[in-house]
Amino acid sequence: VNLDRSKFRHSTRLRVRNYEIDWQGIVHNANYLLYFETGRIEYLQKLGIKVDIATIQGDSRVVVARNEIDYRSPAKFNEELDVLTRVSYIRNTSFAFEGIIEETASKRLIAENVSVHVWLDGTTGAPRRVGDEFRRLVRTFEGVHALIQETG
Amino acid sequence: VNLDRSKFRHSTRLRVRNYEIDWQGIVHNANYLLYFETGRIEYLQKLGIKVDIATIQGDSRVVVARNEIDYRSPAKFNEELDVLTRVSYIRNTSFAFEGIIEETASKRLIAENVSVHVWLDGTTGAPRRVGDEFRRLVRTFEGVHALIQETG
Amino acid sequence: VNLDRSKFRHSTRLRVRNYEIDWQGIVHNANYLLYFETGRIEYLQKLGIKVDIATIQGDSRVVVARNEIDYRSPAKFNEELDVLTRVSYIRNTSFAFEGIIEETASKRLIAENVSVHVWLDGTTGAPRRVGDEFRRLVRTFEGVHALIQETG
Amino acid sequence: VNLDRSKFRHSTRLRVRNYEIDWQGIVHNANYLLYFETGRIEYLQKLGIKVDIATIQGDSRVVVARNEIDYRSPAKFNEELDVLTRVSYIRNTSFAFEGIIEETASKRLIAENVSVHVWLDGTTGAPRRVGDEFRRLVRTFEGVHALIQETG
Repeated sequence: VNLDRSKFRHSTRLRVRNYEIDWQGIVHNANYLLYFETGRIEYLQKLGIKVDIATIQGDSRVVVARNEIDYRSPAKFNEELDVLTRVSYIRNTSFAFEGIIEETASKRLIAENVSVHVWLDGTTGAPRRVGDEFRRLVRTFEGVHALIQETG
Repeated sequence: VNLDRSKFRHSTRLRVRNYEIDWQGIVHNANYLLYFETGRIEYLQKLGIKVDIATIQGDSRVVVARNEIDYRSPAKFNEELDVLTRVSYIRNTSFAFEGIIEETASKRLIAENVSVHVWLDGTTGAPRRVGDEFRRLVRTFEGVHALIQETG
Repeated sequence: VNLDRSKFRHSTRLRVRNYEIDWQGIVHNANYLLYFETGRIEYLQKLGIKVDIATIQGDSRVVVARNEIDYRSPAKFNEELDVLTRVSYIRNTSFAFEGIIEETASKRLIAENVSVHVWLDGTTGAPRRVGDEFRRLVRTFEGVHALIQETG
Repeated sequence: VNLDRSKFRHSTRLRVRNYEIDWQGIVHNANYLLYFETGRIEYLQKLGIKVDIATIQGDSRVVVARNEIDYRSPAKFNEELDVLTRVSYIRNTSFAFEGIIEETASKRLIAENVSVHVWLDGTTGAPRRVGDEFRRLVRTFEGVHALIQETG
């Protein structure tokens, strides 16, 4: 994926910790998924969505269906990173986040991520329409950059 | 991705551990990357490639360039899983692994993965031709199922 | 701590994975806690205690109150390890596990652990007497080696 | 252990992340070791010790020999934590860190840690005298609170 940096309006800052480094001296590839998740959760909190991504509404839950990560340049111990996060689309029963990680000082591109999430009924576990409150909050924050499909 | 299970000739068995479970009671999505990596490393060892994936040859190293994961059904605490692993192609300076995780007893499909790896010169860090010994060992093990491009 | 190896009757085998290695090329010190936990959970399952250590009985739960680890010799990538586990004592509202990790082939001592666990009422969260079924199962398995205090 | 909070002069702030929570809804017990490590590394950096704890000087390295953790109150998702860190003593070939984690807003005590570290010769791996530069920097920062044994 080659994400469009100009569309991102939310950023989370973090610092690479010692235990995230593997024996090559760089961040282990699975840890970037954790960084992107940290960005998504801060994003949801900023929009006023109270709880974890898995329990956005009491009667539904959200699961991750897919992850795509392109590793562009390895991050190293103690580097400060910015995790950019946005919702790129909302369809009937699913939506997608995009994420970019860059090194704070140099803006060096570290990794890019697209994750797809599915909205499930809390009782039956079947896919159901992405909640209206979530749609409204994302539309307000993202404006025209989020493609929100209104009819399922 | 929808991988062709019949092409896989290598399998690694593991059991879901307590600390890999998140607060939803299922394996956290980042841990599947660790399971797939465990499968790849056992695969390399089985083929007689002595060391870690990052140091396949003394004068070169291999880095992960891309990961794609589709989550099909969440794995739960204490479930026994089979991680199927194969090299699907070798190009000039890169190659790809495919992985499938299924629950041992029921064959329930848990997750699918495609990862792309780039062969780098150990000194300059520039991409270089995937090593001949690696090509030979994969061709011997995978036969016609691995697409090995001989001219870069 | 210097644990008495002759008192251990349960052993769990595992292999050091790539992502458990830190940039010094040895297992990161926090991962030994995960190995010891893996041993404790297998131990509980072997004794017929169905679920996770935290939900041994429906109306109570168990929490970790203390961990002591002595690191004796670093474990390395791909080494096969045996995690020895036993319950050393049961008091009124708490009990302790001891653990030893040794490298399978050479019996090299890797680490030793004592962990203390407290039995809590599932509703109030207050400490309560360690369950009778748990006491009975441990006494049957450990015999005289577990010090079980019957009156609180 | 019951550490004396008044002796600590260094604090690191962090926030509990989603993936650090286990299926009980609280921070998994092994993650506190990672928090304490994060505190120690920030402490070393603040004192002007450039690199990781394992490579404080080019011709020596430092390994963890022992960890003691008392869990006082579980930390929960999204809580802000302060990790207090200090060097409590330096002996001939070893030294100790103490750590306290408390919840930022309420000062609720989360966990306490004592870790012991051994100074090794980088070539032979044998214990050697803790470096003079390290002794000097700690004495300057901690003053009378660090017990520094000058003769081995």
